[in-house]
Parts: sequence; C-alpha cells; structure tokens
Amino acid sequence: MTVSSMGTHVVTQIAVVVKDIDKAIEAYSRIFDLPKPEVHLTDPPEKAKGVYRGTPTTSRAKLAFFHMGQVDIELIEPVGEDSVWYEVLAEKGEGVHHIAFQIKDTDGVTAFLDQNGIPTIQQGRYTGGMYSYVDSAPQLGVMLELLENFGQS
Amino acid sequence: MTVSSMGTHVVTQIAVVVKDIDKAIEAYSRIFDLPKPEVHLTDPPEKAKGVYRGTPTTSRAKLAFFHMGQVDIELIEPVGEDSVWYEVLAEKGEGVHHIAFQIKDTDGVTAFLDQNGIPTIQQGRYTGGMYSYVDSAPQLGVMLELLENFGQS
Repeated sequence: MTVSSMGTHVVTQIAVVVKDIDKAIEAYSRIFDLPKPEVHLTDPPEKAKGVYRGTPTTSRAKLAFFHMGQVDIELIEPVGEDSVWYEVLAEKGEGVHHIAFQIKDTDGVTAFLDQNGIPTIQQGRYTGGMYSYVDSAPQLGVMLELLENFGQS
Repeated sequence: MTVSSMGTHVVTQIAVVVKDIDKAIEAYSRIFDLPKPEVHLTDPPEKAKGVYRGTPTTSRAKLAFFHMGQVDIELIEPVGEDSVWYEVLAEKGEGVHHIAFQIKDTDGVTAFLDQNGIPTIQQGRYTGGMYSYVDSAPQLGVMLELLENFGQS
C-alpha cells in the first residue's frame, strides 16, 4: 500500500540534546518540580544495529524522560561521535534535536518522505521497536523521529 | 505568595522559527496531510506593548498554528529585528524556538525563574493575555514561553 502522509500528527516526544544529562536533569527537576528520572543508555551496537548516514555505528546515547502532559521531554547526551545526536550537538549546540511521532509502517512512511525530499539519516532498534531520524529540518525547521513499535495492530 | 516552581508541566506549544512561513506551511500541510492554517500577524506595538531586552520594541511576527494532538506546532516568521524571534533565527537558524506553558502568575513565576538564574528576555501582550520569554536555554537546552490568559480563575 502506498503511503501518502505521516499517518499521524500527534507529537509524542520533544527531544533536547545536551552536553551533560545529569546537570540537565537537575535543572528540569528543580524548575518543574518533577522527580528525577533514571538515565538509560541506549542498547549496545549488536542489539541496536544502528546505521548512521549509511554506515553501521557503535555510537550510543544516554536518555532520560520527563512526562510533560501528552508529550515527554526526552533528554539526550550523545556517547560517541557517529550519530545524529552528536552531529546536531556539534553543529548547533544544545537545543531541541527532534520531535517524535508513533507511526505504523516505517518502510512506507520513509519512502513517502524520501519522495518528498526528506531522506532518512539514521535508523536503529530498541526493545520492541525501531526508530528512524529523517532530514526534515530544511523543509519543516525541525528533525522528525519516527517510532514504530512492533507487535501492535 | 511565593512561587516555587513553574506550577505546570504540561507543554502546550512547540514553536519553530522559520524564514518563510508560507513555505513552511506548505511543507507541514503536505507531510502531515493537514489543512493550511491562516497566518496571523502579532498585534501592533501600541497594543502588544512588547519589551525586548529591556527596551520597547516595534518588531512583530507572523504566526501559524497546526494542531498536533494536545500540543500545537507554532510557526513563527519574524517581522523586524528587535525580538527574541529574530535573535534566535539570526544566531542559530531555523529550528525549535521555544516550548510554551500556560501559567497563572507571571510575576511570581518570572521571579522564581529569575532566582534560579533564568531571566526574562521579552514580554508582551496579546488579546486576552500576556507572554514572557525566559532565558532557560543555558540550563534546560530550550527557551520557555510563559502564557498567562487573563480572566481565568
């Protein structure tokens, strides 16, 4: 089936790339009076099977999530330099890295976006699903992340 | 009453600053299969009473809103150069400019943030309320906008 749009317009995450995730967690917790979330390290390369700009990558990231209503604020501290996380931090400094959407058909949506001039930059897996970052910033002003959880109808 | 936090942690808007709002609207509409919103120009200086870094400003902005679930994506094209909108676009290029929260006590919240090293950069009015931008990026990695609607209990 040909996909002719993202298939959703519900933002689920706003991701902020930072240099020091522990320091950022302290600040969010204090300003919003929220409990400090745990820091997770993304899966190791053999499990994440990350591909960054066409080449397998061993880079990872530290992640932490604050629940802010319908959306989560995701803090990201890059670990290693071969990732879209490090790339954005190095080029533009700390800031919003992407906004995320739950989608259903990664191959279909990435093909649709590619036809609209938005190529995929990085893909990888997490337990229960996969992620794709697409180069939407030139058109939308912000990078999108597509999240597909497996085993959901 | 002393305010000791933002008083909310529900994100209501994700704002993206762009060079050409009409072009960005076209792209969002196509990618997300959403109707094109109208473009609004912020109120004129005598009504907006904008103050940017301590000085009254005549700068304005073109705005458009896409409803993306519980949050709106707000597109901003600066009009004039004396604003936090133009400042971010000139310094960092297109990207997420701020995330917004509905608050209740602008004076209290801005005083709390100031005590936590987050000064107010720009304030102004819109019909029914007022906005404040605060310099939270050094601590949170992203600027916050505080929106207070008047006449609500």
